Amino acid sequence: MAREITGFSNPLVKRLRSLRDKKHRRAEGLFLAEGLRILTEAADAGALPEILVYVDRPDLPPLARQLIARTEAAGGDVVTTGADILAKMSGKDNPGILLGAYADRGTALEAIDRTAAPIWIVAERLRDPGNLGTILRTGDAVGAGGLILVDDCVDPFSVEAVRASMGALFTQAIVQTRWEDFLPWLRSGPGTLVGTSLRTDTDYQAIAYPRPTFILVGNEAQGLPADKEAACDHLVRMPMLGRADSLNAAVATAVMAYEVLNQHRRQVKHA
Amino acid sequence: MAREITGFSNPLVKRLRSLRDKKHRRAEGLFLAEGLRILTEAADAGALPEILVYVDRPDLPPLARQLIARTEAAGGDVVTTGADILAKMSGKDNPGILLGAYADRGTALEAIDRTAAPIWIVAERLRDPGNLGTILRTGDAVGAGGLILVDDCVDPFSVEAVRASMGALFTQAIVQTRWEDFLPWLRSGPGTLVGTSLRTDTDYQAIAYPRPTFILVGNEAQGLPADKEAACDHLVRMPMLGRADSLNAAVATAVMAYEVLNQHRRQVKHA
Repeated sequence: MAREITGFSNPLVKRLRSLRDKKHRRAEGLFLAEGLRILTEAADAGALPEILVYVDRPDLPPLARQLIARTEAAGGDVVTTGADILAKMSGKDNPGILLGAYADRGTALEAIDRTAAPIWIVAERLRDPGNLGTILRTGDAVGAGGLILVDDCVDPFSVEAVRASMGALFTQAIVQTRWEDFLPWLRSGPGTLVGTSLRTDTDYQAIAYPRPTFILVGNEAQGLPADKEAACDHLVRMPMLGRADSLNAAVATAVMAYEVLNQHRRQVKHA
Repeated sequence: MAREITGFSNPLVKRLRSLRDKKHRRAEGLFLAEGLRILTEAADAGALPEILVYVDRPDLPPLARQLIARTEAAGGDVVTTGADILAKMSGKDNPGILLGAYADRGTALEAIDRTAAPIWIVAERLRDPGNLGTILRTGDAVGAGGLILVDDCVDPFSVEAVRASMGALFTQAIVQTRWEDFLPWLRSGPGTLVGTSLRTDTDYQAIAYPRPTFILVGNEAQGLPADKEAACDHLVRMPMLGRADSLNAAVATAVMAYEVLNQHRRQVKHA
Protein backbone atom coordinates (compact mmCIF):
# COMPACT_ATOMS: atom_id res chain seq x y z
CA MET A 1 0.00 0.00 0.00
CA ALA A 2 1.06 3.52 -0.65
CA ARG A 3 2.20 5.53 2.33
CA GLU A 4 0.92 9.06 2.63
CA ILE A 5 2.99 12.19 3.14
CA THR A 6 1.06 15.18 4.46
CA GLY A 7 3.75 17.60 5.54
CA PHE A 8 6.22 19.79 3.64
CA SER A 9 8.78 18.97 6.32
CA ASN A 10 8.83 15.24 5.54
CA PRO A 11 12.45 14.29 4.71
CA LEU A 12 11.36 12.75 1.38
CA VAL A 13 10.33 16.21 0.13
CA LYS A 14 13.83 17.54 0.64
CA ARG A 15 15.43 14.33 -0.63
CA LEU A 16 13.56 14.26 -3.94
CA ARG A 17 13.95 17.97 -4.44
CA SER A 18 17.70 17.61 -3.94
CA LEU A 19 17.80 15.32 -7.01
CA ARG A 20 17.57 18.43 -9.15
CA ASP A 21 21.27 18.84 -8.33
CA LYS A 22 23.79 16.67 -10.13
CA LYS A 23 25.80 16.27 -6.94
CA HIS A 24 22.85 14.70 -5.13
CA ARG A 25 21.92 12.56 -8.15
CA ARG A 26 25.44 11.15 -8.09
CA ALA A 27 25.38 10.58 -4.33
CA GLU A 28 21.98 8.87 -4.35
CA GLY A 29 22.29 7.07 -7.71
CA LEU A 30 18.81 8.35 -8.54
CA PHE A 31 17.27 10.83 -10.97
CA LEU A 32 13.80 12.33 -11.42
CA ALA A 33 11.24 11.96 -14.18
CA GLU A 34 7.84 13.68 -14.20
CA GLY A 35 4.47 13.18 -15.78
CA LEU A 36 2.30 10.28 -16.86
CA ARG A 37 3.58 10.15 -20.43
CA ILE A 38 7.26 9.85 -19.60
CA LEU A 39 6.72 7.47 -16.67
CA THR A 40 4.56 5.24 -18.87
CA GLU A 41 7.23 5.24 -21.58
CA ALA A 42 9.74 4.24 -18.92
CA ALA A 43 7.57 1.35 -17.70
CA ASP A 44 7.01 0.17 -21.29
CA ALA A 45 10.78 0.14 -21.70
CA GLY A 46 11.09 -1.93 -18.53
CA ALA A 47 12.09 0.79 -16.06
CA LEU A 48 10.03 1.22 -12.90
CA PRO A 49 10.81 3.93 -10.34
CA GLU A 50 12.48 3.21 -7.02
CA ILE A 51 10.21 5.86 -5.53
CA LEU A 52 6.87 6.83 -7.07
CA VAL A 53 4.93 9.83 -5.77
CA TYR A 54 1.40 10.50 -6.95
CA VAL A 55 -1.53 12.78 -6.17
CA ASP A 56 -4.52 10.60 -5.32
CA ARG A 57 -7.41 12.08 -7.24
CA PRO A 58 -10.69 10.37 -8.14
CA ASP A 59 -9.97 10.97 -11.83
CA LEU A 60 -6.52 9.35 -11.78
CA PRO A 61 -6.07 7.85 -15.29
CA PRO A 62 -6.05 4.03 -15.59
CA LEU A 63 -2.45 4.18 -16.89
CA ALA A 64 -1.43 5.90 -13.67
CA ARG A 65 -3.18 3.25 -11.56
CA GLN A 66 -1.40 0.50 -13.55
CA LEU A 67 1.94 2.21 -13.00
CA ILE A 68 1.28 2.44 -9.25
CA ALA A 69 0.32 -1.24 -9.09
CA ARG A 70 3.36 -2.34 -11.09
CA THR A 71 5.70 -0.24 -8.96
CA GLU A 72 4.21 -1.68 -5.76
CA ALA A 73 4.46 -5.22 -7.14
CA ALA A 74 8.13 -4.62 -7.94
CA GLY A 75 8.80 -3.51 -4.37
CA GLY A 76 9.09 0.20 -5.11
CA ASP A 77 8.36 2.85 -2.51
CA VAL A 78 4.94 4.26 -3.46
CA VAL A 79 3.92 7.52 -1.84
CA THR A 80 0.76 9.57 -2.11
CA THR A 81 0.63 13.26 -1.31
CA GLY A 82 -1.04 16.57 -2.13
CA ALA A 83 -0.51 18.50 -5.36
CA ASP A 84 1.24 21.28 -3.44
CA ILE A 85 3.76 18.91 -1.86
CA LEU A 86 4.40 17.15 -5.19
CA ALA A 87 5.08 20.57 -6.71
CA LYS A 88 7.56 21.26 -3.90
CA MET A 89 9.28 17.90 -4.48
CA SER A 90 9.62 18.44 -8.21
CA GLY A 91 10.47 22.14 -8.00
CA LYS A 92 8.02 22.80 -10.82
CA ASP A 93 4.88 24.90 -10.64
CA ASN A 94 2.81 22.43 -12.57
CA PRO A 95 4.43 19.01 -12.31
CA GLY A 96 1.40 16.88 -13.16
CA ILE A 97 0.29 14.05 -10.92
CA LEU A 98 3.30 11.72 -11.00
CA LEU A 99 6.91 11.96 -10.00
CA GLY A 100 9.35 9.06 -10.15
CA ALA A 101 12.87 8.63 -8.83
CA TYR A 102 14.76 6.12 -10.99
CA ALA A 103 18.01 4.27 -10.53
CA ASP A 104 20.86 5.65 -12.66
CA ARG A 105 20.81 4.28 -16.19
CA GLY A 106 24.39 4.79 -17.25
CA THR A 107 26.05 2.07 -19.35
CA ALA A 108 29.78 1.39 -19.56
CA LEU A 109 31.34 1.75 -23.01
CA GLU A 110 32.60 -1.84 -22.81
CA ALA A 111 29.04 -3.08 -22.25
CA ILE A 112 27.83 -1.68 -25.59
CA ASP A 113 27.15 -4.16 -28.40
CA ARG A 114 27.74 -1.89 -31.36
CA THR A 115 26.34 -4.41 -33.82
CA ALA A 116 22.96 -4.30 -32.09
CA ALA A 117 22.02 -1.05 -33.87
CA PRO A 118 22.82 0.55 -37.25
CA ILE A 119 23.22 4.06 -35.83
CA TRP A 120 24.92 5.42 -32.71
CA ILE A 121 25.04 9.08 -31.74
CA VAL A 122 28.16 10.50 -30.12
CA ALA A 123 28.08 13.97 -28.59
CA GLU A 124 31.08 15.87 -27.34
CA ARG A 125 30.90 18.78 -24.89
CA LEU A 126 27.16 19.18 -25.47
CA ARG A 127 26.02 21.91 -23.08
CA ASP A 128 22.26 22.26 -23.42
CA PRO A 129 20.05 19.72 -21.61
CA GLY A 130 17.19 20.42 -24.03
CA ASN A 131 19.44 19.56 -26.98
CA LEU A 132 20.62 16.40 -25.22
CA GLY A 133 17.06 15.23 -24.53
CA THR A 134 15.95 16.10 -28.06
CA ILE A 135 18.87 14.09 -29.49
CA LEU A 136 17.84 11.09 -27.36
CA ARG A 137 14.28 11.43 -28.72
CA THR A 138 15.63 11.54 -32.28
CA GLY A 139 17.87 8.54 -31.53
CA ASP A 140 14.85 6.54 -30.46
CA ALA A 141 13.04 7.48 -33.69
CA VAL A 142 15.86 6.54 -36.07
CA GLY A 143 16.54 3.24 -34.31
CA ALA A 144 19.84 4.30 -32.78
CA GLY A 145 21.33 2.10 -30.10
CA GLY A 146 22.24 4.89 -27.77
CA LEU A 147 23.97 8.14 -27.02
CA ILE A 148 27.67 8.20 -26.18
CA LEU A 149 28.60 11.37 -24.30
CA VAL A 150 32.24 12.32 -24.66
CA ASP A 151 34.14 14.71 -22.40
CA ASP A 152 32.26 17.42 -20.52
CA CYS A 153 28.67 17.06 -21.63
CA VAL A 154 25.68 18.26 -19.64
CA ASP A 155 24.23 15.60 -17.31
CA PRO A 156 21.78 13.39 -19.25
CA PHE A 157 19.85 12.75 -16.03
CA SER A 158 18.94 16.38 -15.35
CA VAL A 159 15.22 17.09 -15.13
CA GLU A 160 15.38 19.22 -18.29
CA ALA A 161 17.14 16.53 -20.35
CA VAL A 162 14.76 13.82 -19.12
CA ARG A 163 11.78 15.99 -20.03
CA ALA A 164 13.08 16.88 -23.51
CA SER A 165 13.80 13.20 -24.19
CA MET A 166 10.08 12.45 -23.77
CA GLY A 167 10.94 9.03 -22.37
CA ALA A 168 13.67 8.13 -24.87
CA LEU A 169 16.12 8.31 -21.97
CA PHE A 170 14.71 4.91 -21.02
CA THR A 171 15.03 3.30 -24.47
CA GLN A 172 18.50 4.50 -25.45
CA ALA A 173 21.74 3.26 -23.91
CA ILE A 174 23.59 6.17 -22.32
CA VAL A 175 27.37 6.15 -21.99
CA GLN A 176 29.47 8.85 -20.36
CA THR A 177 33.12 8.57 -21.32
CA ARG A 178 36.26 10.41 -22.38
CA TRP A 179 37.58 10.85 -25.92
CA GLU A 180 40.80 8.99 -25.08
CA ASP A 181 38.70 5.97 -24.09
CA PHE A 182 36.10 6.29 -26.83
CA LEU A 183 38.45 6.41 -29.81
CA PRO A 184 40.37 3.16 -29.07
CA TRP A 185 37.07 1.42 -28.31
CA LEU A 186 35.60 2.65 -31.62
CA ARG A 187 38.65 1.44 -33.57
CA SER A 188 38.57 -1.97 -31.89
CA GLY A 189 35.56 -3.01 -33.98
CA PRO A 190 33.42 -2.11 -36.99
CA GLY A 191 31.96 1.34 -37.33
CA THR A 192 32.36 4.54 -39.34
CA LEU A 193 32.71 7.86 -37.54
CA VAL A 194 31.15 10.83 -39.35
CA GLY A 195 31.25 14.42 -38.17
CA THR A 196 29.62 17.56 -39.54
CA SER A 197 31.95 20.46 -40.17
CA LEU A 198 32.27 23.75 -42.00
CA ARG A 199 35.83 22.83 -42.96
CA THR A 200 34.84 20.42 -45.72
CA ASP A 201 33.14 20.56 -49.09
CA THR A 202 31.79 17.00 -48.90
CA ASP A 203 28.00 17.01 -49.06
CA TYR A 204 26.36 14.86 -46.40
CA GLN A 205 24.42 12.99 -49.10
CA ALA A 206 27.57 12.15 -51.08
CA ILE A 207 28.80 9.52 -48.60
CA ALA A 208 27.49 5.95 -48.23
CA TYR A 209 26.96 5.22 -44.55
CA PRO A 210 27.57 1.62 -43.45
CA ARG A 211 26.23 -0.11 -40.35
CA PRO A 212 27.00 0.87 -37.75
CA THR A 213 27.54 4.57 -38.39
CA PHE A 214 28.59 6.72 -35.44
CA ILE A 215 27.36 10.31 -35.86
CA LEU A 216 29.62 12.74 -33.99
CA VAL A 217 28.00 15.98 -32.75
CA GLY A 218 30.12 18.86 -31.47
CA ASN A 219 29.65 21.56 -28.89
CA GLU A 220 26.82 24.00 -29.67
CA ALA A 221 28.97 27.11 -29.90
CA GLN A 222 32.29 25.75 -31.12
CA GLY A 223 31.51 22.62 -33.13
CA LEU A 224 34.14 19.88 -33.21
CA PRO A 225 37.76 20.64 -32.33
CA ALA A 226 40.41 19.90 -34.96
CA ASP A 227 41.75 16.71 -33.34
CA LYS A 228 38.29 15.15 -33.20
CA GLU A 229 37.58 16.16 -36.79
CA ALA A 230 40.86 14.55 -37.80
CA ALA A 231 39.79 11.28 -36.17
CA CYS A 232 36.58 11.07 -38.24
CA ASP A 233 36.34 8.72 -41.24
CA HIS A 234 34.24 11.35 -42.99
CA LEU A 235 33.65 15.03 -42.47
CA VAL A 236 30.51 16.22 -44.21
CA ARG A 237 28.40 19.33 -44.41
CA MET A 238 24.74 19.98 -44.95
CA PRO A 239 23.76 22.59 -47.51
CA MET A 240 23.17 25.93 -45.80
CA LEU A 241 21.78 28.50 -48.18
CA GLY A 242 21.21 31.41 -45.80
CA ARG A 243 23.37 33.76 -43.79
CA ALA A 244 23.89 31.46 -40.84
CA ASP A 245 26.80 29.03 -40.88
CA SER A 246 25.38 26.42 -38.55
CA LEU A 247 22.24 24.61 -37.47
CA ASN A 248 21.04 23.95 -33.96
CA ALA A 249 22.97 20.90 -32.66
CA ALA A 250 19.88 18.74 -32.20
CA VAL A 251 18.60 19.72 -35.65
CA ALA A 252 21.92 18.94 -37.35
CA THR A 253 22.01 15.56 -35.60
CA ALA A 254 18.50 14.74 -36.77
CA VAL A 255 19.10 15.76 -40.39
CA MET A 256 22.26 13.64 -40.41
CA ALA A 257 20.60 10.67 -38.64
CA TYR A 258 17.65 10.63 -41.04
CA GLU A 259 20.03 10.63 -44.00
CA VAL A 260 21.75 7.53 -42.59
CA LEU A 261 18.40 5.88 -41.85
CA ASN A 262 17.09 6.72 -45.34
CA GLN A 263 20.17 5.18 -46.97
CA HIS A 264 19.72 2.03 -44.90
CA ARG A 265 16.02 1.91 -45.84
CA ARG A 266 16.90 2.08 -49.54
CA GLN A 267 19.44 -0.73 -49.15
CA VAL A 268 16.76 -2.98 -47.64
CA LYS A 269 14.34 -2.06 -50.42
CA HIS A 270 16.91 -2.82 -53.13
CA ALA A 271 18.33 -5.94 -51.50
CA MET B 1 28.27 60.35 -29.70
CA ALA B 2 27.02 57.76 -27.27
CA ARG B 3 25.33 59.04 -24.16
CA GLU B 4 26.26 57.39 -20.90
CA ILE B 5 23.91 55.92 -18.34
CA THR B 6 25.39 55.48 -14.89
CA GLY B 7 22.38 54.82 -12.66
CA PHE B 8 20.07 51.86 -12.25
CA SER B 9 17.21 54.34 -11.83
CA ASN B 10 17.56 55.77 -15.35
CA PRO B 11 14.19 55.35 -17.11
CA LEU B 12 15.84 53.52 -20.04
CA VAL B 13 16.78 50.65 -17.72
CA LYS B 14 13.16 50.04 -16.83
CA ARG B 15 12.00 50.68 -20.40
CA LEU B 16 14.33 48.13 -22.00
CA ARG B 17 13.74 45.61 -19.26
CA SER B 18 9.98 45.95 -19.83
CA LEU B 19 10.49 44.69 -23.41
CA ARG B 20 10.80 41.21 -21.97
CA ASP B 21 6.98 41.35 -21.72
CA LYS B 22 4.93 40.89 -24.86
CA LYS B 23 2.51 43.61 -23.75
CA HIS B 24 5.29 46.20 -23.64
CA ARG B 25 6.81 44.95 -26.91
CA ARG B 26 3.44 45.54 -28.55
CA ALA B 27 3.00 48.97 -26.99
CA GLU B 28 6.49 50.16 -27.91
CA GLY B 29 6.80 48.37 -31.26
CA LEU B 30 10.25 47.23 -30.15
CA PHE B 31 11.92 43.95 -29.20
CA LEU B 32 15.30 43.00 -27.71
CA ALA B 33 18.24 41.11 -29.15
CA GLU B 34 21.47 40.40 -27.26
CA GLY B 35 25.06 39.61 -28.06
CA LEU B 36 27.59 40.51 -30.74
CA ARG B 37 26.84 37.53 -32.97
CA ILE B 38 23.10 38.11 -33.29
CA LEU B 39 23.41 41.91 -33.59
CA THR B 40 26.03 41.50 -36.32
CA GLU B 41 23.77 39.05 -38.19
CA ALA B 42 21.00 41.63 -37.92
CA ALA B 43 23.20 44.39 -39.33
CA ASP B 44 24.35 42.15 -42.18
CA ALA B 45 20.68 41.53 -42.96
CA GLY B 46 20.10 45.29 -42.99
CA ALA B 47 18.54 45.73 -39.54
CA LEU B 48 20.08 48.25 -37.17
CA PRO B 49 18.76 48.79 -33.65
CA GLU B 50 16.68 51.82 -32.67
CA ILE B 51 18.51 51.73 -29.33
CA LEU B 52 21.95 50.17 -28.89
CA VAL B 53 23.45 49.73 -25.42
CA TYR B 54 27.04 48.64 -25.01
CA VAL B 55 29.64 48.22 -22.29
CA ASP B 56 32.63 50.37 -23.19
CA ARG B 57 35.65 48.18 -22.60
CA PRO B 58 39.14 48.64 -24.03
CA ASP B 59 38.91 45.19 -25.66
CA LEU B 60 35.64 45.88 -27.47
CA PRO B 61 35.81 43.80 -30.69
CA PRO B 62 36.12 45.67 -34.00
CA LEU B 63 32.75 44.24 -35.11
CA ALA B 64 31.14 45.85 -32.07
CA ARG B 65 32.77 49.22 -32.87
CA GLN B 66 31.53 48.97 -36.46
CA LEU B 67 28.02 48.23 -35.24
CA ILE B 68 28.11 51.24 -32.91
CA ALA B 69 29.33 53.50 -35.73
CA ARG B 70 26.68 52.23 -38.16
CA THR B 71 23.91 52.65 -35.61
CA GLU B 72 25.03 56.21 -34.83
CA ALA B 73 25.25 57.02 -38.55
CA ALA B 74 21.71 55.75 -39.01
CA GLY B 75 20.45 58.03 -36.24
CA GLY B 76 19.98 55.32 -33.63
CA ASP B 77 20.13 56.06 -29.91
CA VAL B 78 23.53 54.74 -28.78
CA VAL B 79 24.06 54.35 -25.06
CA THR B 80 27.05 53.21 -23.05
CA THR B 81 26.78 51.82 -19.55
CA GLY B 82 28.29 49.41 -17.04
CA ALA B 83 28.07 45.62 -17.26
CA ASP B 84 25.85 45.54 -14.18
CA ILE B 85 23.33 47.98 -15.63
CA LEU B 86 23.32 46.16 -18.98
CA ALA B 87 22.59 42.94 -17.10
CA LYS B 88 19.70 44.69 -15.34
CA MET B 89 18.34 45.95 -18.67
CA SER B 90 18.49 42.54 -20.31
CA GLY B 91 17.34 40.60 -17.26
CA LYS B 92 20.10 38.11 -17.90
CA ASP B 93 23.00 37.31 -15.60
CA ASN B 94 25.51 37.23 -18.43
CA PRO B 95 24.15 39.24 -21.36
CA GLY B 96 27.42 39.94 -23.12
CA ILE B 97 28.42 43.46 -24.07
CA LEU B 98 25.67 44.48 -26.48
CA LEU B 99 21.92 44.88 -26.26
CA GLY B 100 19.77 46.18 -29.09
CA ALA B 101 16.13 47.26 -29.23
CA TYR B 102 14.78 46.76 -32.75
CA ALA B 103 11.62 47.92 -34.50
CA ASP B 104 9.02 45.16 -34.92
CA ARG B 105 9.68 43.01 -37.97
CA GLY B 106 6.25 41.57 -38.64
CA THR B 107 5.13 41.24 -42.27
CA ALA B 108 1.51 41.16 -43.48
CA LEU B 109 0.45 37.98 -45.27
CA GLU B 110 -0.55 40.04 -48.31
CA ALA B 111 2.96 41.48 -48.52
CA ILE B 112 4.53 38.02 -49.01
CA ASP B 113 5.80 37.14 -52.49
CA ARG B 114 5.46 33.37 -52.30
CA THR B 115 7.38 32.83 -55.53
CA ALA B 116 10.46 34.47 -54.02
CA ALA B 117 11.41 31.26 -52.17
CA PRO B 118 10.96 27.52 -52.80
CA ILE B 119 10.10 26.70 -49.17
CA TRP B 120 7.89 28.39 -46.59
CA ILE B 121 7.36 27.15 -43.06
CA VAL B 122 3.93 27.46 -41.46
CA ALA B 123 3.52 26.81 -37.73
CA GLU B 124 0.23 26.56 -35.90
CA ARG B 125 -0.16 26.98 -32.15
CA LEU B 126 3.57 26.56 -31.59
CA ARG B 127 4.16 27.11 -27.86
CA ASP B 128 7.87 26.91 -27.25
CA PRO B 129 10.01 29.99 -28.04
CA GLY B 130 13.12 27.81 -28.37
CA ASN B 131 11.39 25.69 -31.02
CA LEU B 132 10.24 28.80 -32.84
CA GLY B 133 13.72 30.30 -32.92
CA THR B 134 15.26 26.98 -33.97
CA ILE B 135 12.73 26.69 -36.81
CA LEU B 136 13.68 30.20 -37.99
CA ARG B 137 17.35 29.17 -37.94
CA THR B 138 16.52 26.06 -39.99
CA GLY B 139 14.43 28.15 -42.38
CA ASP B 140 17.42 30.40 -43.01
CA ALA B 141 19.59 27.34 -43.73
CA VAL B 142 17.22 25.68 -46.21
CA GLY B 143 16.55 28.92 -48.07
CA ALA B 144 12.99 29.34 -46.84
CA GLY B 145 11.31 32.67 -47.43
CA GLY B 146 9.85 32.98 -43.97
CA LEU B 147 7.80 31.65 -41.12
CA ILE B 148 4.03 32.05 -41.15
CA LEU B 149 2.60 31.77 -37.63
CA VAL B 150 -1.02 30.66 -37.57
CA ASP B 151 -3.40 31.06 -34.64
CA ASP B 152 -2.02 31.25 -31.10
CA CYS B 153 1.71 30.81 -31.49
CA VAL B 154 4.27 32.02 -29.00
CA ASP B 155 5.58 35.53 -29.70
CA PRO B 156 8.46 35.34 -32.24
CA PHE B 157 9.95 38.51 -30.73
CA SER B 158 10.47 37.12 -27.24
CA VAL B 159 14.05 37.19 -26.00
CA GLU B 160 14.16 33.36 -25.97
CA ALA B 161 12.95 33.03 -29.58
CA VAL B 162 15.32 35.73 -30.81
CA ARG B 163 18.23 34.00 -29.07
CA ALA B 164 17.37 30.52 -30.43
CA SER B 165 17.04 31.96 -33.95
CA MET B 166 20.71 33.02 -33.82
CA GLY B 167 19.93 36.00 -36.01
CA ALA B 168 17.65 34.22 -38.50
CA LEU B 169 14.81 36.34 -37.14
CA PHE B 170 16.34 39.13 -39.21
CA THR B 171 16.63 37.16 -42.46
CA GLN B 172 13.26 35.40 -42.51
CA ALA B 173 9.93 37.12 -43.16
CA ILE B 174 7.66 36.66 -40.15
CA VAL B 175 3.89 36.68 -40.52
CA GLN B 176 1.36 36.36 -37.70
CA THR B 177 -2.09 35.46 -38.97
CA ARG B 178 -5.19 33.30 -38.47
CA TRP B 179 -6.00 30.03 -40.21
CA GLU B 180 -9.16 31.52 -41.77
CA ASP B 181 -7.00 34.18 -43.41
CA PHE B 182 -4.07 31.94 -44.26
CA LEU B 183 -5.96 29.22 -46.13
CA PRO B 184 -7.73 31.50 -48.70
CA TRP B 185 -4.44 33.33 -49.24
CA LEU B 186 -2.61 30.03 -49.81
CA ARG B 187 -5.25 28.86 -52.31
CA SER B 188 -5.15 32.16 -54.20
CA GLY B 189 -1.80 31.23 -55.77
CA PRO B 190 0.67 28.41 -56.37
CA GLY B 191 1.90 26.31 -53.48
CA THR B 192 1.55 22.84 -51.98
CA LEU B 193 0.70 22.44 -48.31
CA VAL B 194 2.27 19.42 -46.61
CA GLY B 195 1.71 18.38 -43.02
CA THR B 196 3.27 15.63 -40.94
CA SER B 197 0.84 13.32 -39.22
CA LEU B 198 0.55 9.95 -37.52
CA ARG B 199 -2.76 9.40 -39.32
CA THR B 200 -1.21 8.53 -42.66
CA ASP B 201 0.93 5.78 -44.14
CA THR B 202 2.52 8.02 -46.77
CA ASP B 203 6.28 8.17 -46.34
CA TYR B 204 7.69 11.69 -46.42
CA GLN B 205 10.12 10.65 -49.16
CA ALA B 206 7.36 9.24 -51.39
CA ILE B 207 6.01 12.66 -52.40
CA ALA B 208 7.52 15.05 -54.95
CA TYR B 209 7.57 18.54 -53.48
CA PRO B 210 7.09 21.41 -55.95
CA ARG B 211 8.12 25.04 -55.52
CA PRO B 212 6.90 26.58 -53.39
CA THR B 213 6.18 23.97 -50.75
CA PHE B 214 4.56 25.13 -47.52
CA ILE B 215 5.56 22.88 -44.61
CA LEU B 216 2.87 22.90 -41.91
CA VAL B 217 4.04 22.24 -38.33
CA GLY B 218 1.54 21.53 -35.56
CA ASN B 219 1.41 22.21 -31.85
CA GLU B 220 4.15 20.43 -29.85
CA ALA B 221 1.81 18.33 -27.71
CA GLN B 222 -1.18 17.84 -29.98
CA GLY B 223 0.10 17.95 -33.54
CA LEU B 224 -2.26 19.23 -36.22
CA PRO B 225 -6.03 19.28 -35.62
CA ALA B 226 -8.21 17.30 -38.04
CA ASP B 227 -9.51 20.31 -40.00
CA LYS B 228 -6.01 21.55 -40.72
CA GLU B 229 -4.85 18.07 -41.73
CA ALA B 230 -7.82 17.90 -44.09
CA ALA B 231 -6.75 21.15 -45.75
CA CYS B 232 -3.27 19.79 -46.59
CA ASP B 233 -2.43 18.64 -50.11
CA HIS B 234 -0.30 15.87 -48.61
CA LEU B 235 -0.08 14.29 -45.19
CA VAL B 236 3.17 12.43 -44.70
CA ARG B 237 5.05 10.70 -41.94
CA MET B 238 8.68 10.17 -41.17
CA PRO B 239 9.82 6.67 -40.26
CA MET B 240 9.90 6.29 -36.49
CA LEU B 241 11.42 2.99 -35.45
CA GLY B 242 11.41 3.38 -31.67
CA ARG B 243 8.83 3.56 -28.96
CA ALA B 244 8.05 7.26 -29.32
CA ASP B 245 5.38 8.36 -31.77
CA SER B 246 6.65 11.85 -32.47
CA LEU B 247 9.73 13.98 -32.92
CA ASN B 248 10.46 17.35 -31.38
CA ALA B 249 8.62 19.96 -33.48
CA ALA B 250 11.77 21.79 -34.58
CA VAL B 251 13.45 18.49 -35.45
CA ALA B 252 10.48 17.26 -37.51
CA THR B 253 10.38 20.58 -39.36
CA ALA B 254 14.09 20.34 -40.17
CA VAL B 255 13.93 16.73 -41.39
CA MET B 256 10.99 17.65 -43.61
CA ALA B 257 12.59 20.88 -44.86
CA TYR B 258 15.86 19.15 -45.78
CA GLU B 259 13.92 16.53 -47.73
CA VAL B 260 12.25 19.29 -49.77
CA LEU B 261 15.58 21.06 -50.25
CA ASN B 262 17.32 17.81 -51.27
CA GLN B 263 14.63 17.07 -53.87
CA HIS B 264 15.01 20.58 -55.28
CA ARG B 265 18.81 20.15 -55.35
CA ARG B 266 18.44 16.91 -57.35
CA GLN B 267 16.11 18.63 -59.83
CA VAL B 268 18.69 21.33 -60.50
CA LYS B 269 21.40 18.69 -60.92
CA HIS B 270 19.30 16.69 -63.40
CA ALA B 271 17.89 19.69 -65.29
